Amino acid sequence: MNHIYKYKMVEDLVDGGTFLLNCHYTVDELEEKLPASMKKYIADHKINFYIIDGVKIGIETGMGATRINTILQSAFFKLTGIIEEKKAISLMKEAAKKTYGNKGEDVVKKNCDAIDRGATGIVKVNVPSSWKSIKVTAEKPQTIKGSKEVVEFVKNIQIPVNNREGDKLPVSAFVKYMDGKTPSGTSAHEKRGVAVRVPVWNKDNCIQCNFCSFVCPHAVIRPVAMTNEEVKNAPSGMQVKDMNGMPEYKFSIVTSVLDCTGCGVCCEACPGMRGEKAIKMVELDKALNTQEYFDYANILKEKDDVAEHYKETTVKGSQFKKPLLEFSGACAGCGETPYAKLVTQLFGDRMYIANATGCSSIWGNSSPSTPYTKNSKGRGPAWNNSLFEDNAEFGYGMMLAHSTLRKSLIKVAEELMTKSEGNLKVALNEYLNTQNNSKNNLVATDNLVECLKNSKSELAKTLLDKKDFLSKKSQWIFGGDGWAYDIGFGGLDHVLASNEDINIMVFDTEVYSNTGGQSSKATPSGSVAQFAAGGKEVKKKDLASIAMSYGYVYVAQIALGYDMNQAIKAITEAENYNGPSLIIAYAPCINHGIKKGMGKSQIEEKLAVECGYWHTFRFNPMAEDKFTLDSKEPDFNKYNEFLAGEVRYSSLALKNKEKAVVLDEKNKNESIARYNYLKAL
Amino acid sequence: MNHIYKYKMVEDLVDGGTFLLNCHYTVDELEEKLPASMKKYIADHKINFYIIDGVKIGIETGMGATRINTILQSAFFKLTGIIEEKKAISLMKEAAKKTYGNKGEDVVKKNCDAIDRGATGIVKVNVPSSWKSIKVTAEKPQTIKGSKEVVEFVKNIQIPVNNREGDKLPVSAFVKYMDGKTPSGTSAHEKRGVAVRVPVWNKDNCIQCNFCSFVCPHAVIRPVAMTNEEVKNAPSGMQVKDMNGMPEYKFSIVTSVLDCTGCGVCCEACPGMRGEKAIKMVELDKALNTQEYFDYANILKEKDDVAEHYKETTVKGSQFKKPLLEFSGACAGCGETPYAKLVTQLFGDRMYIANATGCSSIWGNSSPSTPYTKNSKGRGPAWNNSLFEDNAEFGYGMMLAHSTLRKSLIKVAEELMTKSEGNLKVALNEYLNTQNNSKNNLVATDNLVECLKNSKSELAKTLLDKKDFLSKKSQWIFGGDGWAYDIGFGGLDHVLASNEDINIMVFDTEVYSNTGGQSSKATPSGSVAQFAAGGKEVKKKDLASIAMSYGYVYVAQIALGYDMNQAIKAITEAENYNGPSLIIAYAPCINHGIKKGMGKSQIEEKLAVECGYWHTFRFNPMAEDKFTLDSKEPDFNKYNEFLAGEVRYSSLALKNKEKAVVLDEKNKNESIARYNYLKAL
Repeated sequence: MNHIYKYKMVEDLVDGGTFLLNCHYTVDELEEKLPASMKKYIADHKINFYIIDGVKIGIETGMGATRINTILQSAFFKLTGIIEEKKAISLMKEAAKKTYGNKGEDVVKKNCDAIDRGATGIVKVNVPSSWKSIKVTAEKPQTIKGSKEVVEFVKNIQIPVNNREGDKLPVSAFVKYMDGKTPSGTSAHEKRGVAVRVPVWNKDNCIQCNFCSFVCPHAVIRPVAMTNEEVKNAPSGMQVKDMNGMPEYKFSIVTSVLDCTGCGVCCEACPGMRGEKAIKMVELDKALNTQEYFDYANILKEKDDVAEHYKETTVKGSQFKKPLLEFSGACAGCGETPYAKLVTQLFGDRMYIANATGCSSIWGNSSPSTPYTKNSKGRGPAWNNSLFEDNAEFGYGMMLAHSTLRKSLIKVAEELMTKSEGNLKVALNEYLNTQNNSKNNLVATDNLVECLKNSKSELAKTLLDKKDFLSKKSQWIFGGDGWAYDIGFGGLDHVLASNEDINIMVFDTEVYSNTGGQSSKATPSGSVAQFAAGGKEVKKKDLASIAMSYGYVYVAQIALGYDMNQAIKAITEAENYNGPSLIIAYAPCINHGIKKGMGKSQIEEKLAVECGYWHTFRFNPMAEDKFTLDSKEPDFNKYNEFLAGEVRYSSLALKNKEKAVVLDEKNKNESIARYNYLKAL
Repeated sequence: MNHIYKYKMVEDLVDGGTFLLNCHYTVDELEEKLPASMKKYIADHKINFYIIDGVKIGIETGMGATRINTILQSAFFKLTGIIEEKKAISLMKEAAKKTYGNKGEDVVKKNCDAIDRGATGIVKVNVPSSWKSIKVTAEKPQTIKGSKEVVEFVKNIQIPVNNREGDKLPVSAFVKYMDGKTPSGTSAHEKRGVAVRVPVWNKDNCIQCNFCSFVCPHAVIRPVAMTNEEVKNAPSGMQVKDMNGMPEYKFSIVTSVLDCTGCGVCCEACPGMRGEKAIKMVELDKALNTQEYFDYANILKEKDDVAEHYKETTVKGSQFKKPLLEFSGACAGCGETPYAKLVTQLFGDRMYIANATGCSSIWGNSSPSTPYTKNSKGRGPAWNNSLFEDNAEFGYGMMLAHSTLRKSLIKVAEELMTKSEGNLKVALNEYLNTQNNSKNNLVATDNLVECLKNSKSELAKTLLDKKDFLSKKSQWIFGGDGWAYDIGFGGLDHVLASNEDINIMVFDTEVYSNTGGQSSKATPSGSVAQFAAGGKEVKKKDLASIAMSYGYVYVAQIALGYDMNQAIKAITEAENYNGPSLIIAYAPCINHGIKKGMGKSQIEEKLAVECGYWHTFRFNPMAEDKFTLDSKEPDFNKYNEFLAGEVRYSSLALKNKEKAVVLDEKNKNESIARYNYLKAL
């Protein structure tokens, strides 16, 4: 819908051409909603104008709000008459049977209903002659806020590209970026408005748990602590309530509705109060006004005492820190991004990321937009993408380069300390004492840099020259299971074996997600995937056990939707561990075909652990009891129900019932064996 | 020494030039030993002729029989006077200190002694004037025996290349080999005669255990069972004795002394009788006559009943089968080749090998010589080499290609069976019943092929057209630890995970051997290697545990010198297992710096297991008790003694005593932990 405000949608039409707009407006509402320029063009050029509510039909036929291409395709054939209507519909239905036959009769039926409804759902709009005489005023140019480099990039590259005019850009526009660097935080300037429904906060039912923010894949919904002064200056209508435990502050939940994808994960996660949720999903245009609240909250000063009071390493406290991954291009309901976002909230201000090509490179940087961003101090993750097959090595190289540079600086600092006194000596001492802790060392480095500025020593100058490399960095390697279990595994193993301080996060969707669902070694028995169309015959590889065999590698399996606390604990321990760490995060994906929909992706994680399909644990080489099985005794009776809830499993039974029973049983038995093995540890 | 018979060694000298011959002959013996053409050239061209016994000096100074380059270098400077003698010697000694200082004072002293002795050890030969009038008769051309393709290759490529005249070959000489294929068994035509001392058999002390043959890295010493008729026709002087358990045969041990490298491993392995060994090492020229016995034994018919009686899967029985890897270019005492040779004795007649670049590609095919050979039926391993980084994938591809082809043939066979009767039906039935067992299926296929020849069916013709692909093959992947633990590990893991019937043999030297000793993830703590000059700080990767984590992978660790029976058992079980198998074979290497010398490489394997440095075990997914720890409770008190016996460990103490103590202790503790872990399994 938002497209009519963003793109020139009718201007390419010839006189008497046909325009079909997918929207939820009635014919009467169009008068108010359509931009003046569009209305005038339609009237001036005698456009045949139709509307259709594809989303409504999608929901009614069971296709869902996002799978409306079938509906619109059917409407297209009806309107264009390229193929005779009856024939077109029959061909489309045949195709649907062929494509979705394997996924079950209900899926085929939904598609056929959608095809029928698409052809009948179009409504002809009688264009009022008054539209001819509309006065079109020039649109006021968009104001872009941000640093000079961001403004330049957004204006010169991002806006033209997003307006589909990228191919008109001259090469000279890219000269500034020819080393491959682009500014952080540009995704915030997209404001795509792609959601059909967005969350609206009802303060009366809110217990201030911050779960909604914790689970949001796109970082669009956030808690905010405001002073009374800030509340006074807030846009009118902004809701606040007394903040629990900190009476000097007011609390609010704000949403960047124009960045929201409308998955509803926040709403599902909301515990609410007395059975009533604090979050309700409403149509985007009914909540457009709330964008202003978010924008206001977003420029308020971060409250150090709030983060201090609630502790950043708790579920609640972590959400008062700005996510340094926001408004990415991830799918609605993505299971990967909540993990990545959390990592940036904890360590983003001092973080290097080496990213394996795959989904995490798509949501991590879908050109021309960068969702990794900076905090108010101008600090954020340094992110770079590598080839699928050598990302672990790439991250290892980043770490080695930094640590080599830094070691030489530490030597200089040590020498300088023997020649210093007073504040500088104290600062150097603190810097050296904290050198292995990325959080404390960042504070110590800031202080040291200030002191160095007052020194006339050549050594101080050497340190200042390379001040970006002084502080301890949090080195991360991100990638999916296709990378970690398969193609990049040789390198991943090598980095784990190195015994260097480096952290690896695996977003385990159990399938090659970005390339459309090929089987990986993380794919469990019985799962249907490309290259395993008859159900995978070989069990899921036990990456955690392999990593644990080294003895000196921190290893954890987490599932945020099952246990947010355990996830945050594991991530924090991994980063603190002065050696290699591997975190394997269970991440639901659109490729799973979760029958309840991706809005329930976090609930699916919960079910996966409760039924014993996934287990959460931590292996900490520094702990007295190295191994902790965090997830509770599973109820394996729920196992088959869980499998039946996902098309990747349920579809096999339609093709080959007997085989499906055998493989599902195999899958279950492998999980039971795995659980018993973990319990024995 | 043998070089004087093989190469034109003096013909490039100018009149009055200088020639130094390294030999163990006295001046008087030269008259008899030197070829006529050489004597005449020396006399005709007034060559200044010197001799030196480098090997003797090497042994006397402790450098050993093979490290004589230092001695000859010193002699070279003395004779040429390029640098003033005193200065040259002092510079050489300085270089020795610099190069070997890290390896201990004794090593430096040996080198310095060798330098002194080289300069003083030369003996001037007064060339008799009679040499001028010697008549040189044309040498009779060498007769090459073998198949047409072998004879052609040896004559047209191998001999010129080995005579250092390869660069004179025209491109057209290689046209036949442009697809990369060269004939098997050409190494047998090299007869390099490089050994200083070779084994000679004393039948009186022999208990017919065949250990000498089992451990020989170059397959030069072999048992032979002979009929009385064969004994009667044997070359005169050939020793035989009554064969134990089979009175119809005589037993002999024969040696291809011209292919021997003189390591003495056979002699060390010989248990002998009443404290007297049955094998004695004597100078090559004193045993040259025994080559004839070997050559004779080599053309005798293989005795099926002997192999039947002693069972090929026993240490003794396996050695009555022709090694299909013989006379390779491996180092004297190599720890790798005895394993590979044994595999060829067991499965070589039906074996595909994918080989990872590294030592196993050097001894596996050092151009222009191929040590892989064929048995009397013309069957031998099909060997191909791949890049270091993708050999597992390469072998997997070989297997998939063969099995895809074969599956289609099996379908044809099944169809043909429904239409057949009589012998053909029986043969087809047997073929299909044995399809998963490479040994029985080979026999069944031979029989089937004969029957198919009598059939007029089109289906029979289809099968005959592709008869090479009918029988089940034994698919192997060979490589070293640099490949398996490091660079090729991603692929190795993928192949193991595949659950296909494929066998992987890792020659674990714990270091990159072929490239000169770089540290790999198989290198244990404290070991000195390139890139770990200060002793490796991180423990050896546990490849076996990683493989066992799959549950469906056959995994074994073996050490032939500790337990020949366990090694042969593991190899046989691995091949029989209808799934992926991984064998990790402990292989001493010249890079270890075994102080006792490479002649004791098998004894070093024994010590390694006895002290707990290495463990032997088998994990068989098909067995009731999956895991069997084969090696006995080790005596960890012997651990430090073992480490001290190898320069890779002992050299660290010379550079950094404290660190060496810490790392050796770490190494030991890691082995103890590993043993306890295995015991718990």
